[in-house]
Amino acid sequence: MKKKNIVFIAKSLDGYIAGKNGELDWLQAIPNPENNDMGYKQLMEDIDAIIMGRTTFETVCGFGGDWPYQKPVFVLSRSIKTIPENLRGKVFLLAGPPQEILQKLHHKGYFRLYIDGGRTIQDFLKADLIDELRITTIPILLGGGFPLFGELSEAMAFEHIQSVVFLNQIVQDHYKRKR
Amino acid sequence: MKKKNIVFIAKSLDGYIAGKNGELDWLQAIPNPENNDMGYKQLMEDIDAIIMGRTTFETVCGFGGDWPYQKPVFVLSRSIKTIPENLRGKVFLLAGPPQEILQKLHHKGYFRLYIDGGRTIQDFLKADLIDELRITTIPILLGGGFPLFGELSEAMAFEHIQSVVFLNQIVQDHYKRKR
Repeated sequence: MKKKNIVFIAKSLDGYIAGKNGELDWLQAIPNPENNDMGYKQLMEDIDAIIMGRTTFETVCGFGGDWPYQKPVFVLSRSIKTIPENLRGKVFLLAGPPQEILQKLHHKGYFRLYIDGGRTIQDFLKADLIDELRITTIPILLGGGFPLFGELSEAMAFEHIQSVVFLNQIVQDHYKRKR
Repeated sequence: MKKKNIVFIAKSLDGYIAGKNGELDWLQAIPNPENNDMGYKQLMEDIDAIIMGRTTFETVCGFGGDWPYQKPVFVLSRSIKTIPENLRGKVFLLAGPPQEILQKLHHKGYFRLYIDGGRTIQDFLKADLIDELRITTIPILLGGGFPLFGELSEAMAFEHIQSVVFLNQIVQDHYKRKR
């Protein structure tokens, strides 16, 4: 099976994934009465597992309610020591550089991976391990916050696959790494 | 006539308008054999004058060749003292805060203005004086450089007008400020 690491994330017009104080409310700035999932369910069907950072994991846990993922979630953290009992068998802890993480997951049979969380995405991009970017842009300038993209030692070319406009306001751009 | 301040600029996927050392070569990364102008000529017809910062002015001068603008260009600079003789009547010097600059130009009968240059765009956005954003995204991560957007004290909502894909690779997004 083809190995693939996919980023699927929403950002502001100015490239932030969270506001200055971690705010995420602007993600819901555009009314979405019919709960258009903007490709999320399809993505979830297309992947084998999810890799996310500690902050994203804690954010998802903070939402409360049922655990939202059907696929195994690998949380990258050195500080978390145990997984809450209700998440055992669903969430697993890992630590190490991106290349090692991937080797471990490929060895377990997980090849198509959803890479989530700002820090994790930046680390995987730095190691040039991202194959697809699916970026959803909310039409707002936040003016500060946690940026989606970080510093890179070299430029990386991507290929535009498609752009789709959701709810008449939200543009989703799909890019593949040009190698 | 309706007053309007328009930004029309190209950025990398990660939001830079120039590379770490001021590089602009990546703007031509996508082959453009038929010189698609991606809406530039239409913009030039739709405006009365151009406001740009010193760096952009010096960059344009450095390109050599004929002066590329048909409309009056107002360069914001305190350090430039005189305009080269061949540009007199075409280029004018101004200095002051964005609101004052606009008052001067409106008084002269220039209402539809193309705001160009990273620093100038950021200053006008900070003062909430940008009405339209037309942003062209080149599918490359630069990993550093001069960012299109800067810090803002408050978030600003925009309305998506349209997105167009040029050369099968370059997405141009058109937004209006929601007031």
